[in-house]
Amino acid sequence: KAASVWVFFPVTGNTFSKIMMAEESHRQDSAYLLIFIMLLTLTILTIWLFKHRRFRFLHETGLAMIYGLLVGVILRFGIHVPQSTSDVVLECAVNASPATLLVNVSGRFYEYTLKGEVSRGKDHQVQDDEMLRKVTFDPEVFFNILLPPIIFHAGYSLKRRHFFRNIGSILTYAFMGTVISSNLLVVVGQLGGDFFFTDCLFFGAIVSATDPVTVLAIFNELKVDVDLYALLFGESVLNDAVAIVLSSSIVAYQPTGDNSHSFEAMAVLKSFGIFLGVFSGSFALGMATGVMTALISFYFTKLRDFPLLETGLFFLMSWSTFLLAEACGMTGVVAVLFCGMTQAHYTYNNLSRDSQDRTKQLFELLNFLAENFIFSYMGLTLFSFQSHVFNPMFIIGAFLAVFLGRAANIYPLSFLLNLGRRNKIGMNFQHVMMFAGLRGAMTFALSIRDTATYARQMMFSTTLLIVFFTVWICGGGTTPMLSFMSIPVGVDSDQEHSDSCSFLFRTSDWFFQNVTEPLFITASGLLLSVFTSFAHIMFFFPSFFLTKYLKLSQIE
Amino acid sequence: KAASVWVFFPVTGNTFSKIMMAEESHRQDSAYLLIFIMLLTLTILTIWLFKHRRFRFLHETGLAMIYGLLVGVILRFGIHVPQSTSDVVLECAVNASPATLLVNVSGRFYEYTLKGEVSRGKDHQVQDDEMLRKVTFDPEVFFNILLPPIIFHAGYSLKRRHFFRNIGSILTYAFMGTVISSNLLVVVGQLGGDFFFTDCLFFGAIVSATDPVTVLAIFNELKVDVDLYALLFGESVLNDAVAIVLSSSIVAYQPTGDNSHSFEAMAVLKSFGIFLGVFSGSFALGMATGVMTALISFYFTKLRDFPLLETGLFFLMSWSTFLLAEACGMTGVVAVLFCGMTQAHYTYNNLSRDSQDRTKQLFELLNFLAENFIFSYMGLTLFSFQSHVFNPMFIIGAFLAVFLGRAANIYPLSFLLNLGRRNKIGMNFQHVMMFAGLRGAMTFALSIRDTATYARQMMFSTTLLIVFFTVWICGGGTTPMLSFMSIPVGVDSDQEHSDSCSFLFRTSDWFFQNVTEPLFITASGLLLSVFTSFAHIMFFFPSFFLTKYLKLSQIE
Repeated sequence: KAASVWVFFPVTGNTFSKIMMAEESHRQDSAYLLIFIMLLTLTILTIWLFKHRRFRFLHETGLAMIYGLLVGVILRFGIHVPQSTSDVVLECAVNASPATLLVNVSGRFYEYTLKGEVSRGKDHQVQDDEMLRKVTFDPEVFFNILLPPIIFHAGYSLKRRHFFRNIGSILTYAFMGTVISSNLLVVVGQLGGDFFFTDCLFFGAIVSATDPVTVLAIFNELKVDVDLYALLFGESVLNDAVAIVLSSSIVAYQPTGDNSHSFEAMAVLKSFGIFLGVFSGSFALGMATGVMTALISFYFTKLRDFPLLETGLFFLMSWSTFLLAEACGMTGVVAVLFCGMTQAHYTYNNLSRDSQDRTKQLFELLNFLAENFIFSYMGLTLFSFQSHVFNPMFIIGAFLAVFLGRAANIYPLSFLLNLGRRNKIGMNFQHVMMFAGLRGAMTFALSIRDTATYARQMMFSTTLLIVFFTVWICGGGTTPMLSFMSIPVGVDSDQEHSDSCSFLFRTSDWFFQNVTEPLFITASGLLLSVFTSFAHIMFFFPSFFLTKYLKLSQIE
Repeated sequence: KAASVWVFFPVTGNTFSKIMMAEESHRQDSAYLLIFIMLLTLTILTIWLFKHRRFRFLHETGLAMIYGLLVGVILRFGIHVPQSTSDVVLECAVNASPATLLVNVSGRFYEYTLKGEVSRGKDHQVQDDEMLRKVTFDPEVFFNILLPPIIFHAGYSLKRRHFFRNIGSILTYAFMGTVISSNLLVVVGQLGGDFFFTDCLFFGAIVSATDPVTVLAIFNELKVDVDLYALLFGESVLNDAVAIVLSSSIVAYQPTGDNSHSFEAMAVLKSFGIFLGVFSGSFALGMATGVMTALISFYFTKLRDFPLLETGLFFLMSWSTFLLAEACGMTGVVAVLFCGMTQAHYTYNNLSRDSQDRTKQLFELLNFLAENFIFSYMGLTLFSFQSHVFNPMFIIGAFLAVFLGRAANIYPLSFLLNLGRRNKIGMNFQHVMMFAGLRGAMTFALSIRDTATYARQMMFSTTLLIVFFTVWICGGGTTPMLSFMSIPVGVDSDQEHSDSCSFLFRTSDWFFQNVTEPLFITASGLLLSVFTSFAHIMFFFPSFFLTKYLKLSQIE
């Protein structure tokens, strides 16, 4: 009788092997994610060591990149896992690649979702390494999961007093500067060979955005002059917003209808309108959810007794800003930036003491993890990405353009601004700003989003090198640079939140809290929208004419 | 000249429509995620209202389910979005459905990943609603993202003194109880019609795990008797671990080789060995990472100066436990439970005051969000799930078995335990424990994991009803039940962590902190492993013979 006991574990070979395969794949996924977690853990421990020893020549982001690089090398050259046999190549009569595929396997339907294009050798052989493909994330992960907390944190922790005091200069640097340096980059883009003009535009748009992470972390630690901090911080945060809207507008562009040639004036106007709409829409949306959260936390005052609920609400409302903007076809990252600023102004003061700490700590942690993840992923990508295209001419040109563009941004604009400023921007400040034009997370995320064509691959590789160079050399050299330029450090920036009712002009007047600052925020948002729209126009036209008349590149 | 300006936005119809399609899909995804976030926000606000008004007849989890239900009804009957046209049905000559598909579209390769089986009508027509399919998450999301923080939090916030004082009773309830009630359920499973025996085993395994969330939140709020709390908490947490290991062992079972009939003794032994290995391996892994984190936080004492780094490290190490266990083929959830317990014992005391608060608050928030998400998703599923199978006979049988099983667990075992206990478990405690046997997140997650066959669909629908009933009726009735049974409430449980050096026997002896409690943890882990392995045997055999000799069901 006992001989039949095990009959009741009937798994047919087929089902069983399918379960095993799925389990195997799940195991591998876990292992690869584990690699990243270990990388982050290692980074944290080393950061601690550096902080403990007051070693400041390599910032944590640079460190994360080095560890990523090492793991990339190991994965590339050390371990080699052959292509798994679970791949089945279907030769099907589909013209395009749809987002969803339904496969009919003997009467049962299985749904497949598009993961992306896979690069193959010329003879269509299965060439790439399963492992390297596995450690590559969907680029949308950066936009939908990693960037929002970073940008929100930037808005939430913005020192608003200094920001608004320098709003004019910040806007000038962020917009005029982007336009100048990206025009230069567009011209350099022509060096890449057979690029289309839109590719050059795209390259200009993504590489001119400076990064708020690395330098500001150092500034924050050293407590440098608050105005310098505000200038660089404001510029790089707004920069990111401009870069993301500009680049997505380039990708999604199309002329109106078939007979577009005859409607050029309309088309320009229309594109201007769309751009203005997207930017100010995102801005308005971010402000609106911020204000709504503030109202909820104001009217539901008893919510203060339950910090967990309060924090949960705050977190969910801020996240929903991002989703709402994306669902409406706006730009989630821009919305989240303004949501953060509004939350810091309105909601923060309505929260209980406990929740104030909780929300700050929560977003600090999320920001920290996301940041380090992006930077270690960058390091990894240099070796794990399969289709790098390194073109020496293009790389040299791009490096030159990045630095010349930065110089053409900072020095002339500072000169012009100093004509109007009471509190002049000194030459030492200008040199530091010139030096601190790092490229970071946003540039990387934008360039990895689409690496399907040869031109985009070349851009991606070049961008990666620019990021590495600026983060290591410029980031590492910031501390010596500051002391060399004799910039005041150890300045005690006043606690923003403890006297948040009086941050403007140091009066505790209700009027300032409730009328002046909101007006400032709104006005700056509108200014931003208009500025960006103009920048958008100013960005396209000079680039176009330069290209057209110098006959540098193909204009399709 | 100007007429050619717009030529440089060349997006071919194909590329453009692809971008638009991807964008449209991204928008929809954002919108559906937004629905959930809004649901959670609404839940939070209503919870606050309930807490404010001291209304205790509906717990937050029940509330989340109701909101989910409402949204499910709206999505199902209110809005109707037709099937998107982006689906392409391929009729291909593949025998199995591989995890990855490579599609060759005119020379370019696109990678597709398997999302799951899609139910189709008999005539293979595209019948299901795009929207309802979109709001359905991959079941693995529950296992890899939502359950780990809940289980970790359970381990981390465990009141260890009371837990260890009642360890014998807890183990008895958790294991013997599971065996008894699942055997009953297996017999009931036969009512479902043409089930395979493994299906019945699976049903028994998943439905007998009680939920630690709802009742304990109420208990915590009312501060009920600590022993009652410890008994219920310990039982339901260990329950979950048993259910997950048992059910996955059932799914992955197979006889050894083709001539398995002749090796039954070996096979039994081997399965016992595997089970013991998986359970004790997961347990050891969880403990090991916990101890490692403790060592790091102990030796890197200067880490205390940087609470952000400390919290980040803590979070990453705890997460890597889960990933490591999954990567090694162990059970991540079990590992995370023991990791949480170890962290609470060792690491917590090494952390800075600031990090202690941060980690507690972080996991509290994650737990809160994950919990409410699961429960509102449950509500949604009742209407959005496409292939419900409601079989009245089976449902009635299952409900009866759930309650009879619970009674057969609590009353006889309490009688036996009281023979040995100094501190007897009173009849009023027993009634409350009988009543508080809710089914929740784990049961749901396990039953939604596989809904491919008719039997599994019927189980899923029935499980959903059981969860709804127990959460609403039993959960809502807990407060009146407590006062009816005159259970002491408002008991001030001593602060666990403030005197964590002396939680055992109230001595501040180094010996207890460093020898006795670790031994207790290790011993209980080993006991758990052995107990579970026996439970596993005891679970299979009686069920098998019952089924075999009563000739109730098909034995394949």
